[in-house]
Amino acid sequence: MAQPETSPKVAIIMGSRSDWPVMKKAAEALDGLGVAYDARVVSAHRTPERMVDFAKGAKAAGFQVIIAGAGGAAHLPGMTASMTTLPVLGVPVPVRDGLKGIDSLLSIVQMPGGIPVGTLAVGEAGAKNAGLLAAQILALTDPDLSQRIEALRAAQTDSVPDSVED
Amino acid sequence: MAQPETSPKVAIIMGSRSDWPVMKKAAEALDGLGVAYDARVVSAHRTPERMVDFAKGAKAAGFQVIIAGAGGAAHLPGMTASMTTLPVLGVPVPVRDGLKGIDSLLSIVQMPGGIPVGTLAVGEAGAKNAGLLAAQILALTDPDLSQRIEALRAAQTDSVPDSVED
Amino acid sequence: MAQPETSPKVAIIMGSRSDWPVMKKAAEALDGLGVAYDARVVSAHRTPERMVDFAKGAKAAGFQVIIAGAGGAAHLPGMTASMTTLPVLGVPVPVRDGLKGIDSLLSIVQMPGGIPVGTLAVGEAGAKNAGLLAAQILALTDPDLSQRIEALRAAQTDSVPDSVED
Amino acid sequence: MAQPETSPKVAIIMGSRSDWPVMKKAAEALDGLGVAYDARVVSAHRTPERMVDFAKGAKAAGFQVIIAGAGGAAHLPGMTASMTTLPVLGVPVPVRDGLKGIDSLLSIVQMPGGIPVGTLAVGEAGAKNAGLLAAQILALTDPDLSQRIEALRAAQTDSVPDSVED
Amino acid sequence: MAQPETSPKVAIIMGSRSDWPVMKKAAEALDGLGVAYDARVVSAHRTPERMVDFAKGAKAAGFQVIIAGAGGAAHLPGMTASMTTLPVLGVPVPVRDGLKGIDSLLSIVQMPGGIPVGTLAVGEAGAKNAGLLAAQILALTDPDLSQRIEALRAAQTDSVPDSVED
Amino acid sequence: MAQPETSPKVAIIMGSRSDWPVMKKAAEALDGLGVAYDARVVSAHRTPERMVDFAKGAKAAGFQVIIAGAGGAAHLPGMTASMTTLPVLGVPVPVRDGLKGIDSLLSIVQMPGGIPVGTLAVGEAGAKNAGLLAAQILALTDPDLSQRIEALRAAQTDSVPDSVED
Amino acid sequence: MAQPETSPKVAIIMGSRSDWPVMKKAAEALDGLGVAYDARVVSAHRTPERMVDFAKGAKAAGFQVIIAGAGGAAHLPGMTASMTTLPVLGVPVPVRDGLKGIDSLLSIVQMPGGIPVGTLAVGEAGAKNAGLLAAQILALTDPDLSQRIEALRAAQTDSVPDSVED
Amino acid sequence: MAQPETSPKVAIIMGSRSDWPVMKKAAEALDGLGVAYDARVVSAHRTPERMVDFAKGAKAAGFQVIIAGAGGAAHLPGMTASMTTLPVLGVPVPVRDGLKGIDSLLSIVQMPGGIPVGTLAVGEAGAKNAGLLAAQILALTDPDLSQRIEALRAAQTDSVPDSVED
Repeated sequence: MAQPETSPKVAIIMGSRSDWPVMKKAAEALDGLGVAYDARVVSAHRTPERMVDFAKGAKAAGFQVIIAGAGGAAHLPGMTASMTTLPVLGVPVPVRDGLKGIDSLLSIVQMPGGIPVGTLAVGEAGAKNAGLLAAQILALTDPDLSQRIEALRAAQTDSVPDSVED
Repeated sequence: MAQPETSPKVAIIMGSRSDWPVMKKAAEALDGLGVAYDARVVSAHRTPERMVDFAKGAKAAGFQVIIAGAGGAAHLPGMTASMTTLPVLGVPVPVRDGLKGIDSLLSIVQMPGGIPVGTLAVGEAGAKNAGLLAAQILALTDPDLSQRIEALRAAQTDSVPDSVED
Repeated sequence: MAQPETSPKVAIIMGSRSDWPVMKKAAEALDGLGVAYDARVVSAHRTPERMVDFAKGAKAAGFQVIIAGAGGAAHLPGMTASMTTLPVLGVPVPVRDGLKGIDSLLSIVQMPGGIPVGTLAVGEAGAKNAGLLAAQILALTDPDLSQRIEALRAAQTDSVPDSVED
Repeated sequence: MAQPETSPKVAIIMGSRSDWPVMKKAAEALDGLGVAYDARVVSAHRTPERMVDFAKGAKAAGFQVIIAGAGGAAHLPGMTASMTTLPVLGVPVPVRDGLKGIDSLLSIVQMPGGIPVGTLAVGEAGAKNAGLLAAQILALTDPDLSQRIEALRAAQTDSVPDSVED
Repeated sequence: MAQPETSPKVAIIMGSRSDWPVMKKAAEALDGLGVAYDARVVSAHRTPERMVDFAKGAKAAGFQVIIAGAGGAAHLPGMTASMTTLPVLGVPVPVRDGLKGIDSLLSIVQMPGGIPVGTLAVGEAGAKNAGLLAAQILALTDPDLSQRIEALRAAQTDSVPDSVED
Repeated sequence: MAQPETSPKVAIIMGSRSDWPVMKKAAEALDGLGVAYDARVVSAHRTPERMVDFAKGAKAAGFQVIIAGAGGAAHLPGMTASMTTLPVLGVPVPVRDGLKGIDSLLSIVQMPGGIPVGTLAVGEAGAKNAGLLAAQILALTDPDLSQRIEALRAAQTDSVPDSVED
Repeated sequence: MAQPETSPKVAIIMGSRSDWPVMKKAAEALDGLGVAYDARVVSAHRTPERMVDFAKGAKAAGFQVIIAGAGGAAHLPGMTASMTTLPVLGVPVPVRDGLKGIDSLLSIVQMPGGIPVGTLAVGEAGAKNAGLLAAQILALTDPDLSQRIEALRAAQTDSVPDSVED
Repeated sequence: MAQPETSPKVAIIMGSRSDWPVMKKAAEALDGLGVAYDARVVSAHRTPERMVDFAKGAKAAGFQVIIAGAGGAAHLPGMTASMTTLPVLGVPVPVRDGLKGIDSLLSIVQMPGGIPVGTLAVGEAGAKNAGLLAAQILALTDPDLSQRIEALRAAQTDSVPDSVED
């Protein structure tokens, strides 16, 4: 997980190490755009104090955007959002014995008025997009990053084949 | 809200005062059985510190069972459960603009292994049953309460009419 | 299935032997805390008399908490609860040809007012948590057990890695 | 509720008197075909013994078909079916604070192999159809009833207007 | 598919030969009870005339109960029921690219008032139960069959192990 | 219901007169484009022969597109499609005691390969769009109609206000 | 992908090359009926300009029907429909990490009044049917094609076996 | 709709003027924080060109965050996101004849990898939170706004009553 040298502005947190195969798509998206990040396991339910410490200290630690992924009764994104005014992006992770991720999705997106979580799609697509959206937020004040995002979009457009077959 | 004189062993917490019309069914069930309780508003998202203080201090405060009701992305029961080893009972509250309570239900019941929440039905029936289940737990070591519960059950059975019409 | 020597206070019942791979997570949780239990198959639909006998006799048999798991149109937890005032914890088991467990979940959790079932998550996480919640209930009057639960929680917290990778 | 003079072959049971406004559609369908029935409240959860007595004694009491309606975690149809070999027809009743009846439907229809419940639609249409299906079963050995059903069908067909407006 | 020698009173129809692995559970249940049946493919959508001919002629052909299985937008049970007054039992078959069978279930069970279909569970359990329910209907006037069903139920009850492990 | 003078090329059929308040949106859309239509009640379940006659005779009667609306276990669109090679457009109608129309939708859209139904949205929007789509199909060989549709689209675009308030 | 020599009247577009295994069932259906088509990848989200160009130019390019398949938040069918008055048929493609295609289905079918999309079933059955429905539309003015469709239907009917086993 | 004097950095767009009663909660949230915004109707389906023009020109127009609300098959947020690299926040609006907003939610949140939309809750709570999240994003480089948000949060925390009753 190659990291740029600047201090990380994006935190990627997840409720369990088993969420990493999904959440690393967020990391890869940030890597691809040269955005530094810090990825760690923070469980709302098993390590609530670690979560409180992280959320309350995130702004002082220099983070600007928090990406939080969790599955099942996914409380990490919303609880983190309740203890910081940094933008929090939530990624519903589908879990074994879960209900295809619909439980994760509703647990994250249906936040009450007052505490927003910007929620992405269930699974890998959502994790990748959380990384991209974090970069788009940072790019509002980083023209170089903005250019890299525009270039990525252009490359993405160019990469779509016209033909349905090889 | 008439209260018995003994110190309350049951805490009823809810995410918003607007949950009270539903959650008071728990209070009424406890009232009917002579079980003291304390009812208060504790919002996971709007008052996370109050929630942390409550959950961590609940055992020392003499509570034995916690009933927690919330709607939408309902994090209060699970987060409370993560910070206490007292039994926590969750009540999904249906909310305006919510999805009939299915979001509340899944947010409460689908807890990961390690942090249990005993979840009741959506809405008033669930709230009433949370009160009854709390009493059933306390009755394990309170023979008088146990007798009152048995009597209530018997009265409940007797109250079921045989005829479908008056 | 090593059993402590004391008489079991927890009954684990399930609708079919095929539920055991899920329900044994409850047994393992209780084993880990040194809580004696009795596990058996009791089918609401195929052995209704066995269920009635079990439910009505559970209190006299010395049980204090009943864990009931079932799949599909899962009636075992609710029917057992209707014939005892012991706390009943329900575990929705996902079954082949079932609807991912949503049918089991709704059949268990949506009990009418008057007969509570404390419902856990679908599948193995729910079974494990039923064991833990049963222990938490027993611990209200068992300081040693309470300490073991607190120790388990602390160990659980410590076991959460900070790093997302090995 | 005018009743024909013959001894009733159809039992209509329901979990609560509040189910009667829905379940009386079954009664009306039977009335319309001159089929005697007995309608009563039998709650699986609040009067389990009444249910056991009813189900075990239904055949001896002369019933040939049982119609059972219930809402939420609807266990009455399946539990009754587990204690009789008479055909049992289930009607999901939508209830307040329920999930539009989808909980009732799944609780009734998703029975495990071995204990069948013939399930009808949610609500009044289902109740009416339960009455009709009971009559169709009885008509297998009652030519007069069979003729009345055929006549009802023909009248039903004739009653469908061709025009969309008056 | 061994068949008893008497003329079949039960018809098992299904929308596609690919439904047979599920629907043969109905046949096996009838075989086990010595009930003759006729199993064939009748597609509501691909062979509507065959369906009309079958449904209109079923009573004259001596059938007393019709079991109809179909998947996806499953119209076979309801359409058959619209053209006969014989009892029709519906089995929702889960299909590839279907929605886990919930589409099949709703397409079969949600019939309008006037045309009943007694619906069983999704998949193999439902097919088995359709066979059993058909037998229970026939047994109303066949004491020998009734005894075989009672015996099957007793054997089924006896076959439920008490122990969760071998 | 003012009708143009030409012979109708569009048939609007519906399972019940009670569907007309929804289905008349299709009629209004066709009226607005000067497309003649014939609207009538044809119930798949209560008037199956009328349906068969209609579907088999629709092409000879000069119809070119069939719009079929139904609720609950909605079989009318698919069954009609099985008996004609004219394009059939289906409109899911939400019904009382139905499941918000999701049952109607799945019953119509999930047709098996071989018999297509072009399905529109649940309710009035779907009915209106069925009328528009029928017109778009007819417009493939009717330049005047095509122009009227283009004009309607342009007017529709112009009618969208820029401001959110009056 | 053998193509007839006439200029294609049907366009098959899809959001990603990974949709082709599903969408080629539409192509195969058209191939089987000798209907020329053009299949290409047009992503609403990754190539919005290509989509705008395609949709606005489709009529001038000689297309008469557009089949559009997409998964997840599937916007391609509806957006294409918003920029052409040609009939647009939508195919919900189930995608990895999607919700079994229910997300694709609702994203396509629930169009607002004014912009119709004729939606087919989720997955391969829907793709095949989109091809057939496109052909049925073209056949309104192509008697030879109409005969081929009638012949295909007849062959389809004949191919349905009567027996459930080989 | 009183507006601050600075040029607006937030655009609030919605698919229909009928979405305004929901979407104005976003406006009110921004008003409360002194953040200028521009609110207008932009329909993906009825005014696709207006949408393209808006989305492509949003960055040049000085906007920094776009809030997009829509109902049913809600394509506005995702399509806007496909044509800008500004952060786009989506609000699912429940609509009449819609499916309680679950269709809107899935249509917005389930975006494919590459084009992110940060999605908020269904209805008014989601709209309010979209306004707050937009402000939180802008506050990353606006210390005064950051202070106002912190103050709002503190006031929000203080406003939560402890007592459940007046």
